[in-house]
Amino acid sequence: VTRMLHIAARERVPRLWPTVFVDALRQIGEIEFAENGHALTEDERLSLIRGCRILLTGWGTMPVPAAIAGDPGELGYICHVTGEMRRVIPAEAIAAGIPVTNWGDAPATGVAEGAMALLLASLKDLRRHAHTKREGGWRLDDETSGGWIYGLNVGIYGCGAIGRRFVELLRPFGSTVRVYDPYVTDVPDGCLRVGSLDELFEESEAVVIHAGLSDETRKSVTAELLAKLPKFGVLINTARGGLVDQDALFAELESGRLRAGLDVLDPDSLPPGHPAREWDNLILTAHQVEREWPTDGGQPTRMLPMHEVCLDNIQRFLDGRALRFTMDSERYARST
Amino acid sequence: VTRMLHIAARERVPRLWPTVFVDALRQIGEIEFAENGHALTEDERLSLIRGCRILLTGWGTMPVPAAIAGDPGELGYICHVTGEMRRVIPAEAIAAGIPVTNWGDAPATGVAEGAMALLLASLKDLRRHAHTKREGGWRLDDETSGGWIYGLNVGIYGCGAIGRRFVELLRPFGSTVRVYDPYVTDVPDGCLRVGSLDELFEESEAVVIHAGLSDETRKSVTAELLAKLPKFGVLINTARGGLVDQDALFAELESGRLRAGLDVLDPDSLPPGHPAREWDNLILTAHQVEREWPTDGGQPTRMLPMHEVCLDNIQRFLDGRALRFTMDSERYARST
Repeated sequence: VTRMLHIAARERVPRLWPTVFVDALRQIGEIEFAENGHALTEDERLSLIRGCRILLTGWGTMPVPAAIAGDPGELGYICHVTGEMRRVIPAEAIAAGIPVTNWGDAPATGVAEGAMALLLASLKDLRRHAHTKREGGWRLDDETSGGWIYGLNVGIYGCGAIGRRFVELLRPFGSTVRVYDPYVTDVPDGCLRVGSLDELFEESEAVVIHAGLSDETRKSVTAELLAKLPKFGVLINTARGGLVDQDALFAELESGRLRAGLDVLDPDSLPPGHPAREWDNLILTAHQVEREWPTDGGQPTRMLPMHEVCLDNIQRFLDGRALRFTMDSERYARST
Repeated sequence: VTRMLHIAARERVPRLWPTVFVDALRQIGEIEFAENGHALTEDERLSLIRGCRILLTGWGTMPVPAAIAGDPGELGYICHVTGEMRRVIPAEAIAAGIPVTNWGDAPATGVAEGAMALLLASLKDLRRHAHTKREGGWRLDDETSGGWIYGLNVGIYGCGAIGRRFVELLRPFGSTVRVYDPYVTDVPDGCLRVGSLDELFEESEAVVIHAGLSDETRKSVTAELLAKLPKFGVLINTARGGLVDQDALFAELESGRLRAGLDVLDPDSLPPGHPAREWDNLILTAHQVEREWPTDGGQPTRMLPMHEVCLDNIQRFLDGRALRFTMDSERYARST
């Protein structure tokens, strides 16, 4: 029987351990949860870890002692259920060849779905609808609203895991998809690749940002680019606020020419009383658009993509197949 | 060269004739637009119609004289670009074997997309977000909001053209889809068929209504069914308001237990001052959720699905292939 172990620093983090996930692990083997790991000595923790075949780590876990590299005992695989791992997994374990994986592209699911919600809500003017009903009106003026994804020219700025997931969601709607990403070797089937942000904004009616933030991309969505979008054009940003010249965007929104759905801003929020809080053509979601179904005391009522990735990788390990999202020393050194 | 004709009662209805559609027709043959058809005698109209190969009808067109049935001249096909046709096309033309088609399932595209917008906006609590930002708050409380389609149990009530289109849009999100429709012989691939509305509401976290209104379906979404949905469960209705026991639904919304997105109500709108106009867990779109991109003086800036259906059918007619959405005498007699 496969022995699995998780050492929580104090209590298990509820979000990481929905019942349905724990039940699925129990179908695979034995899973031991050690709580209050902070009260264990390093030797006690090493002894526990050396006695298991698979160690599960993630939020709220105790760091793995570096000494595991020299003598892993029974340990064959460290499955990090979440993303960032430098405070938990020692570089020595990776250098020693113990396979270590993380959640890989799992977070893309929620972010891409959130971006789709913002795109549809912007096109259908849902905030303007709410305002109109609240104020005693009913129908919206024919000339100031509407839009379908069907037939729309959609531009994707950044085509990593999230951008690709977004393109999958977009596919059955029947739009024309253009992609700008100088860092990828290919774009998804059926998408048109463009060579510059100029071209992307020139040809698109809605631009969805899925790029990373770096010195090259900071404020890369400029006033000049925004001016290329047509009247009622839409900008969606669920990536990082710093990618956009926010003053320029807000000027376009205040004039009513563009529409936007923004999960992220730069800085993170708007001060109370800021006029943009009231604009009907701006949907703001306070970096919460990717949130899952209300939890039961913090515990998800279902498996999340990170749990699916974890279960898939454990099965791969047991079958002797290649793992997904394996960490190597070079990536580990670059990660934050 | 193929001669095509449209006789407008007065001016052409802009929504029916976007430039890109007219240009596509001109690629196929000659298209004549006769305006102020109301000023023509019946004989003048008959003479015009007998001289064309394909007659295009739709909103704002002059009725086709019944005498066309006895002597159609060159006329080989009547392509009705929109839906309802009894005030325009005489039963005699259909009985005489002149092929007549309408827009078929074209309206499903916009309605299904609208339903998806409402489902996502309800799950992400976009109206509550707008309210919170307006009032000077920022983040939403963790325990009262959120939801992904990924992993969600979605129930589809009614699986005709719109329900099927909705299922296509839903597919890449990765939900579990249950379908209730006693009138269809099969359900789309990958969907679970359930035998009753009881079962649909018992097993679903979100129910999306795509059923028709009839004596059997009127108020078929009862208080008892709504009570089966879990806390924060979602009801979406873009079909007909009369399908739902609205008092029961409003009681569930007022208590905050459920969430809803409603494009249709019974009756059509809420009086000014009705409390439901202010509920953050209710998104209302005044039967406008299917509206396309803002028009240029009433003229769409792109082709709509009805134009695609029309072009496809004209090409089929010219190629001698079977037409889609052909009207026969029996369906015509039943249509409204």
